[in-house]
Parts: sequence; structure tokens; C-alpha cells
Amino acid sequence: MKETDIVIIGAGPTGLFTVFEAGLLKLRCHIIDALPQPGGQLAELYPKKPIFDIPGFPSVDAGVLVANLMEQIKQFEPGFSLNEVAVSYKKTEDQQFIVETNRGTSIKAKAIAIAGGLGSFEPRKPPIEGIEAFEEKGVEYFIRDPEMYRDKKIVIAGGGDSALDWTIFLENIAAEVTLIHRRNEFRGALDSVEKVQKLKQEGRIHLVTPAEVVGLLGNGEVSAIEIEKEGKRSVIQTDYFVPLFGLTPKLGPLSDWGLDIEKNAIKVNNALDYQTNVEGIYAIGDVNTYPGKMKLILCGFHEATLMCQGIYNRLNPGKKFVLKYTTVSGVDGFDGSRKAAEKAVVKSIE
Amino acid sequence: MKETDIVIIGAGPTGLFTVFEAGLLKLRCHIIDALPQPGGQLAELYPKKPIFDIPGFPSVDAGVLVANLMEQIKQFEPGFSLNEVAVSYKKTEDQQFIVETNRGTSIKAKAIAIAGGLGSFEPRKPPIEGIEAFEEKGVEYFIRDPEMYRDKKIVIAGGGDSALDWTIFLENIAAEVTLIHRRNEFRGALDSVEKVQKLKQEGRIHLVTPAEVVGLLGNGEVSAIEIEKEGKRSVIQTDYFVPLFGLTPKLGPLSDWGLDIEKNAIKVNNALDYQTNVEGIYAIGDVNTYPGKMKLILCGFHEATLMCQGIYNRLNPGKKFVLKYTTVSGVDGFDGSRKAAEKAVVKSIE
Repeated sequence: MKETDIVIIGAGPTGLFTVFEAGLLKLRCHIIDALPQPGGQLAELYPKKPIFDIPGFPSVDAGVLVANLMEQIKQFEPGFSLNEVAVSYKKTEDQQFIVETNRGTSIKAKAIAIAGGLGSFEPRKPPIEGIEAFEEKGVEYFIRDPEMYRDKKIVIAGGGDSALDWTIFLENIAAEVTLIHRRNEFRGALDSVEKVQKLKQEGRIHLVTPAEVVGLLGNGEVSAIEIEKEGKRSVIQTDYFVPLFGLTPKLGPLSDWGLDIEKNAIKVNNALDYQTNVEGIYAIGDVNTYPGKMKLILCGFHEATLMCQGIYNRLNPGKKFVLKYTTVSGVDGFDGSRKAAEKAVVKSIE
Repeated sequence: MKETDIVIIGAGPTGLFTVFEAGLLKLRCHIIDALPQPGGQLAELYPKKPIFDIPGFPSVDAGVLVANLMEQIKQFEPGFSLNEVAVSYKKTEDQQFIVETNRGTSIKAKAIAIAGGLGSFEPRKPPIEGIEAFEEKGVEYFIRDPEMYRDKKIVIAGGGDSALDWTIFLENIAAEVTLIHRRNEFRGALDSVEKVQKLKQEGRIHLVTPAEVVGLLGNGEVSAIEIEKEGKRSVIQTDYFVPLFGLTPKLGPLSDWGLDIEKNAIKVNNALDYQTNVEGIYAIGDVNTYPGKMKLILCGFHEATLMCQGIYNRLNPGKKFVLKYTTVSGVDGFDGSRKAAEKAVVKSIE
């Protein structure tokens, strides 16, 4: 079992920045996220799109913000359980928590910070009979690790940015990439649409439109798919079938944690430390609600900061340790690194 | 009389970012600040020092953060009254406010946002008899506009970064620069100390240490100063005397505005919109206090945002206009500019 001070559910910008503020208070963090990489929807849904309301950035691409946050927190050595969903928690006798994930990971922590954004992103699944039986046996709803597809045959279904971008990316890796979409029209960045057009013209991918995948074949593992194109059915041999039909955020298992929920968000005490109705469990960022709540990244940063101070105070009653200007205090990493402003010298001039 | 929607007292990072969030809600702002440039203590006290806890910046020099914020808000065309202190306000019959400054500027606004940081920075004055009579008549406590000193004689007193940096800067502009300090040792960035040492050796400035200015001479305007060095008095002809002995933040006139004050900070309703006990007057950033308050820049950003939404709701009862992700909504400037994420195309691939 992993042990840490704060287990953070959600690796979006709020969850990531929590590691920094916790680190300043000498608290260690472990992050669980359902997606295969940190960054939440910034990394999964719009990494190349600009955000204009992060203070100090007239414009910053979402993916760059995530990279910056990862750089900012790295000296505090956060642990990550990616591709995992936090499903349940229990309280221990020593007033700690054990959080369990859908993949059997157990993490013991002194506090739980839910930074779950809009919820864990669950893929929209195509209505193909028996698809569940092939999940993780050839059917994948995310590209978790592109290397999995090296020299394999892959069929991607979908008509948006994810389908386009992964088609482009995997064409270099896979033995054969087929892109299937129920319309001839794709919706995405102009650049991506044009690249796929070019790959098709050069014969480097197979494009099948308008068509739908209607069946999966295979003995335990996927070996082929059945498609329907303009009323005719045919079969395509493949090792993998990856439908990329978008993600739906779901509060998911958290909705059974005994937390006060209002309009699909977790109610917190915004007048103090963003704690939920369960002592020791906090909710920050887009996942929480309170009077006047605004679902903005910069609000999540503030909430994370006050929460960390609240957790510190709860764990260290009577002890005073308030975050100070980092320009004055510097930043001491758990990895032994130190960031600090250059000190003034005292020197005579003759 | 100037008119605006929100008059902001304090041009530090919190005050500046307020312009952005207000602008998204189509509210215009005018900022008053006692210092000669925007940025508050970041610009005045430590522009070249790094800050490590601004989310998304592993490290950012204070002056760069200020420049970034100015860039981020420029399309919302804020007004500025710099070098001015807000001294009083009155409520008008139509429930607006008129704020007056120490230089006689009047600004009418629908709401007042106090983003005063640690207070307005007042200079520490040297104990020289009759110095008040020479203020703005040769005696200056800030370098408000370096051009004022072109081809003039200036005596700077002080032993810290400001005294060193302005000596270096003005040596190129003024006819003659004299730096006086009561010790031989200066305290500042190594680089600055070394530069002043070099200017002295090259005879480009006069350095007088250890010495103190003990008197001012002149008929209405300063024409000379009297100094005491190692027990001996002498006179130096000069057009300007600029003692740079540091700044002390003072809540100043705001303490008489009828606001609830606790430990030199203004109490606000942190459970909603950071409004003070006076309806329509808000306090955000380091100047306010509430349970769990932390004096961090990132907290000011959040407070500014919720305050702007609160002001909007107060001015437009019943109307709904909630800030959304700028990636989706884009940013429309008052200057006609538009920032927006590139739109997806819908295009067929044949």
C-alpha cells in the first residue's frame, strides 16, 4: 500500500498545483486520475487551444500550462496513479483514509483532496453488441500508450480532433491504420484535417467513410471488425479497435461517498478551507460548489492553497506555519533542490 | 470628473488583474495608485526578484509578471491615476461613489475595489528640519520621472537597492549625481554595488560616505544641501535632493472610511464576494482579511474574479452573465480587438 499525506483525486491544473502548495508545507501528495496523462481536460480535450484568463498569461496553450505546472511541482515528487479511477475510501482507526482504485491500488493518506474537475472522463461507447467483452482485449477507448500499437493493425472510429490526431500520430507507429467515420465530413483543426487528407491520398492510411462499425469478431481478443458502408457489410482484419467518440464527465463513484452533492457538484465550506461535510475530505476546483462559485482554473488554484493550509492546520493543531512570499522564503524541494532569490550583499564602496 | 464602472485603489497584481475580469463582464475600470508606476510592491520593491508560487510559472521575475498583466489587460483600456492617493469617498444620490485623491482628481464609479496591498507606500523621511517646505520643490522621495533630472544636479541619499539603481540610471541623464550614505557599506544586488563602485572609480559620480545630510538650503526651491561627514560640515550645490530610505506601507486615509478593520486589514465577506461592511465597497488581495486569509498573489486573483462577478450581479439584478472558459468564449476588448481559439473546421476528406 502506498502512503502519503494528501491523496489527490484528479490531475487537472487544480490537482497539480495542490502538490506545490502542499510541498511548501512539507506535505507529500499522490495523484489518481482516470486519464492516461496529467492535465485533465486541458491535456485530453484541448492541449493546443489557448486559455486567456490565467493571470499573468495574456495567452497560454492548455498543454503548455500543464507542462509548466508539472515543472513547477516536480521538486515535490508527486506520485501518480494514472489510468485509474478512485472508487472507494475507508477511514482507518488512526483517523487516516485508505482510497482504493478500480485497478486495486490502495493509498493511505491523512487527507483526501478531490480535484475532480467535471468528473472522471468516461468514453462514449459505440452501441455495438458485446463490446464490453472485448474491452482491453483489442477494444480501447483511449490511446494510453502509443507503443502498444507498434507494428499492429488498428482501426480508429470517430470524426473529431482525437480521431484525426491519433490517426496522424499512429500512422508512423502502427503497421496499418484505418479511420472510419459515419460521415464524409470531419470536424477538427484545419491543419489536422489536411494532414489526414494527405495521408489518405498518399495511401498511407485507409479511410472508410461514410461507414459504421457494427460488429466485433474474435476469439477472446479482437481479430476483425464488421462495418456497414452505404448498406453493404464487410469485414476488416485488425488487432485493435479504438472508437474515439468523445468523453462524458461523470462524477462516478464519488457520488456514493456520502458527500453533500448539489447539481452534480460537491458542496464545500468556502468560508474556510473547502472541506466537504466529511472531515478530512476536501473538494477544490470545478468539482465543488458554494455560493458564488465560478468554474475557473484560477479559482481552483486559490482553493487548493487555502485547502493545503487547512489540512496543515488540521494535522498540526496549535502549530503555526503560514505560507509566505516565496521570493523571501525560497522553495525547498523534497529532492534536495532549493530555489531562492539572489541574496543582497553588504559591501563597502571605497 | 472621470467616470467609470469600478474604481480600483491599488495597481498591484490584484488590482491589475481586476481590470481583466471586469472587462470580460463589460465593466470598465480606473486605477489609482500612490506609486509612479503600476505593479505595486512588485514594481517598486523587487522587480528583478523571482516569485515561485504564481501558478503556471516555475519562476517569474516580479517585473515580468507586472508586464504580463499589463499586456493581458490592455484591451480593456484601464484608466490610471498614478502618483495619487485616494483620500475620501462620498455616495451620490444615484447610489454611485465619488472618490477623491490627494491631487484633486475625482472619479465617479458604481463600485469601489480596494486592492491596496499592504497599504499605500509612504516614504521614510530623513529627520531634516524644514524638509516638508521643500517637498516637490527640489525634494522628492520617489523618482517619478527620470527626465525631470536631465542636465540637473541631483543628490541621492540611501544605501539600498533603490539608491544604487537610480544612481546608476541617472548618471546617464543628470549633469551631476552625488550619492550619500551614512555608512561605507551598501546593501544590494552584487551587480549594482559593483557598478556603482566602477562609476565612482571612473569619476562619473560623486560618492560621499560615511555622511549624512543635515540641512537644506534654498530660497523657495532647493539650491544646496548641508552634509556632515566625520564631524565636519560642508555644503553641496544641487537642484534636487532625493532621499531613498525605503517605503512604509500605511493603510492611510482608508482607515477613516468607516470600514471594519482588523489588524490593519479590511474585513470582508469571503463567503460570497469580498464585499466590506459598506455596500458597494469591496476589498481584495493583501489588504483584506477573513478566516483563513493568506496574503498571496494567487489568492488576490481569485478574490478579484469573484468580486467582479459580485459587482456585475449587484449592478444587474436578475440578469445572468457568468464568466465562461475564455477558450470557448474568446476575449472581446473594448478597443475592438478579439482574442479567440482557432475554430474547428468541418470539412470532408475524399
